[in-house]
Amino acid sequence: MAKRLKVVFLGGIDEIGKNMTAVEYGDNILIIDAGMTFPTEENPGVDVIIPDMTYLVENRDKIRGLLLTHGHEDHIGAVPFLIRSIPDITIYGSKLTMALVENKIRENNLPLPKMTVVEGGATETIACFKVEFIRVSHSISGAFALAITTPMGVLFHTGDFKIDFTPIDNNVIDIARISEIGKKGVLLMMGESTNVERDGYTISERTVGASFDKIFSQNEGRRIIIATFASNVHRLQQIINTAVKYGRRVALSGRSMLRIADLARRMGELKCPNNVIVDVESCNKIPHDKIVIVATGSQGEPMSALTRMSKGEFSKITIGEKDTIILSSSPIPGNERSVYNVINNLYRRGARVIYGSLHDVHVSGHACKEELKMMLTMVRPKFFIPVHGEYRHLKRHAQLAEEIGVASANVIMPELGQQYEITRNKVSRVGKVAAGNMFVDGLTIDDMDSSMVLKDRRQLSEDGFVVVLLGISIENHTVSTLEFIARGMPSLEPYVEQMKTAINRAFADLDYSGSSDRGELKAAIRRITRKTIFNKTKQSPMILPIIFEN
Amino acid sequence: MAKRLKVVFLGGIDEIGKNMTAVEYGDNILIIDAGMTFPTEENPGVDVIIPDMTYLVENRDKIRGLLLTHGHEDHIGAVPFLIRSIPDITIYGSKLTMALVENKIRENNLPLPKMTVVEGGATETIACFKVEFIRVSHSISGAFALAITTPMGVLFHTGDFKIDFTPIDNNVIDIARISEIGKKGVLLMMGESTNVERDGYTISERTVGASFDKIFSQNEGRRIIIATFASNVHRLQQIINTAVKYGRRVALSGRSMLRIADLARRMGELKCPNNVIVDVESCNKIPHDKIVIVATGSQGEPMSALTRMSKGEFSKITIGEKDTIILSSSPIPGNERSVYNVINNLYRRGARVIYGSLHDVHVSGHACKEELKMMLTMVRPKFFIPVHGEYRHLKRHAQLAEEIGVASANVIMPELGQQYEITRNKVSRVGKVAAGNMFVDGLTIDDMDSSMVLKDRRQLSEDGFVVVLLGISIENHTVSTLEFIARGMPSLEPYVEQMKTAINRAFADLDYSGSSDRGELKAAIRRITRKTIFNKTKQSPMILPIIFEN
Repeated sequence: MAKRLKVVFLGGIDEIGKNMTAVEYGDNILIIDAGMTFPTEENPGVDVIIPDMTYLVENRDKIRGLLLTHGHEDHIGAVPFLIRSIPDITIYGSKLTMALVENKIRENNLPLPKMTVVEGGATETIACFKVEFIRVSHSISGAFALAITTPMGVLFHTGDFKIDFTPIDNNVIDIARISEIGKKGVLLMMGESTNVERDGYTISERTVGASFDKIFSQNEGRRIIIATFASNVHRLQQIINTAVKYGRRVALSGRSMLRIADLARRMGELKCPNNVIVDVESCNKIPHDKIVIVATGSQGEPMSALTRMSKGEFSKITIGEKDTIILSSSPIPGNERSVYNVINNLYRRGARVIYGSLHDVHVSGHACKEELKMMLTMVRPKFFIPVHGEYRHLKRHAQLAEEIGVASANVIMPELGQQYEITRNKVSRVGKVAAGNMFVDGLTIDDMDSSMVLKDRRQLSEDGFVVVLLGISIENHTVSTLEFIARGMPSLEPYVEQMKTAINRAFADLDYSGSSDRGELKAAIRRITRKTIFNKTKQSPMILPIIFEN
Repeated sequence: MAKRLKVVFLGGIDEIGKNMTAVEYGDNILIIDAGMTFPTEENPGVDVIIPDMTYLVENRDKIRGLLLTHGHEDHIGAVPFLIRSIPDITIYGSKLTMALVENKIRENNLPLPKMTVVEGGATETIACFKVEFIRVSHSISGAFALAITTPMGVLFHTGDFKIDFTPIDNNVIDIARISEIGKKGVLLMMGESTNVERDGYTISERTVGASFDKIFSQNEGRRIIIATFASNVHRLQQIINTAVKYGRRVALSGRSMLRIADLARRMGELKCPNNVIVDVESCNKIPHDKIVIVATGSQGEPMSALTRMSKGEFSKITIGEKDTIILSSSPIPGNERSVYNVINNLYRRGARVIYGSLHDVHVSGHACKEELKMMLTMVRPKFFIPVHGEYRHLKRHAQLAEEIGVASANVIMPELGQQYEITRNKVSRVGKVAAGNMFVDGLTIDDMDSSMVLKDRRQLSEDGFVVVLLGISIENHTVSTLEFIARGMPSLEPYVEQMKTAINRAFADLDYSGSSDRGELKAAIRRITRKTIFNKTKQSPMILPIIFEN
């Protein structure tokens, strides 16, 4: 049988989150990214959603490597789960990406797999593939697009990117090389679609630095507190630069902020004069007009330093009229209420609060429409598949590709789990593999701590919840009550009987003998209910099993 | 005792929703607006939040009238609840406002109170007050600002407004009169703050008409479906005008759309040639390129026509490749997910979908920063209180007033339930009245139908939920289990005991004798839990009481 080139998307399709793509030629599979959904940095490893990896596990003998485009959670968050199943995999990525992945693996107490750090412009030969890592701009440093030369032709994956001609580290996106690759001929391009609905160009990260400068100069004599994403090292670099210019020290607050800053400094990605960074514990000893506090919590996470400051519950820092707080971020959809509550509370304490688009204190990390057009024009692919977006994003990106001149028949709207075979002349659907959400219960739902509150809300807001009420008699080993109470989702009626049957069977199989079996029974209820509802509705409500014994 | 002028805010402070203000002089009280929160038009009267009206009920003898600025639910939604307590009140408002209120009262099977329709520019003398109703622009016709002449001086309330010099009905906001009133001297201005965070000016409603024209011309040969807010009569007028121009009939879908269009036509606010409007039932008999369907559901409400169309579950209209759907609206915060799901599904059916800011198919009804500055400049009040906004909006509007020249000491940040006394020289805090959320359970939570799904989600997303698990023995009339399970909110631990005591007492008092008392017991549980949690946390989670008997 002739060898065939195939691509299958295991995540990142019809969603912005948990990216994962597999490229296959003959007996060789390369994985691009292994992300998770709901990357709340405050609770790593807890109750996350990762891609269904059945296909990869079943084909583990063929896997030749995992290519990571960059270090955001929706691209690396599932790595520990992947290496649990496939421990002998080799991972490729930039220095910062690999440092973040290594940290993540160590936190999960897993042995490190083979890890190959690559530079922008480098090429690695992996089995029958030649993989070139191409520098792109993004809201984290060390981000790559990938050009994968296969025996059938070149696949080009943009990764997440923007086109920033004045990036903070001066490592400009390598448009010359991308154009060259495009000119030589790209068979299939996969392009990220996040900001396709936004006209024009994404503003350069550098403009945020100019805003900081202006704000610092207007807030002399005041304490400045900046909330931002921990992973945006360039943002932190600009804060440090501005602080140095205005003679201020910098205190970092938040576990992930400290961790990433430490990693970035050690590898030279973050440049900082000695003695500028001080411990947040000691920042009250420094005059308020000589300090900048950089904190996580820009999404209004309930346990974050910023949220606690806003409520007057953070002992180290008391907010008052002499404080200026900058939210250098924008709310991720679903977090608006939490973020605005933090802002309202900061105002209530008398602080100045700077946020929103009017102040240029945040820019997106994703390419807007004109940049996407530029990328398509440089790459000039024969076939195009939009990735990394909801259906509306993918659809619009597909339309954009047609406008740019990709033949309409050669633009493919991807489906999750659909395997596509790519030849020199056509892309065909050839089969389906298991794909979808895998739920990882780091803790059972009943053990959740309060740092889970925000995530609860997001899930509730998106998919509602189902209370499963199970009354059992231990003596007779029978089920006396079994009820489903759903909120925030369509009626369960059509498949209640099916779930009841399955739960009754699970109870019978369990040989339940008391509270020591409760955890297992609850897990079974959750699994059955979740699976049935997801199959029927594609929703993932929170499942809350309640067991009472009589 | 000398008569005193007092103002108290019973709603609309620290929130955008359920507006209600009381103005008091001596023994005379005027109420401005009586709104509710969560104005989902699809389920009127069901499980809504209204202002605490204890103060008004206690002072019912003093109430001289209810002034309605306009007909949106957050300004008129609580009228039925108010007249249940105070049936002899006189209501004042524009023709459209009064028609909407009358409809609402009739739906609640309540007797009509005295209702006085006023025109823009009219003045009514009500007890010691002289009330002038001044035309303003807003996203519903018949919107007024109010100038209330009291023995102490003039109070000016902007209502909700924007400044639109080219409104659809040519009834331009009466800036000449506002300026005149300002020139004569305004003691206290209360100004709406919704869009204070947006720079510049709100675009004229008329630009949406121009966009419709362009879209209609680009979509000849296709069926056009437009989703918008039912109450925006001017938007509907523009759709009708464009349809007539392009030789299309108009079918209206959605109960509130039909009701408001009917009201508006009968009172001459909506102008429409005969035979243009057709029944949605018969619209399939008209060629697709000769019809425009106007539907509610622009917020992704699960039971709305648009959502059902997007899922292929609306028998009257099947969406396909020949359809162009316009979302002439923007998602209310909290509805983003639902709206985007509808858009994704419409795309999946092959339709063209037009939405978002790029197409100018929607404009806000609220004044942006420059308009707020213009209003402040015209009114030139001695004292200023920002209203109708979250704390951050009120704060920024207060700052704006100072920038415009209102003396810093004369700008007051309002508090809910705080009574302010206004003299010619100062505004003082003089007392507190009961104020906050009143929850109206039109149906008990267990009777909810699926049209409640969206509201559930919003509440869940904002305030989480609490399951109260009560196990009781009917025989012994004892409580065997009482547990609280909370999600999406801080720990209940500190006041669990307090709630347990209250619920135990409620159960003891009830003399519970079987399932016929369940409803009452559940209501008691909800009341106790809700009240305690709200007092402690200011959150209003969904309360889900579950009673099991053994």
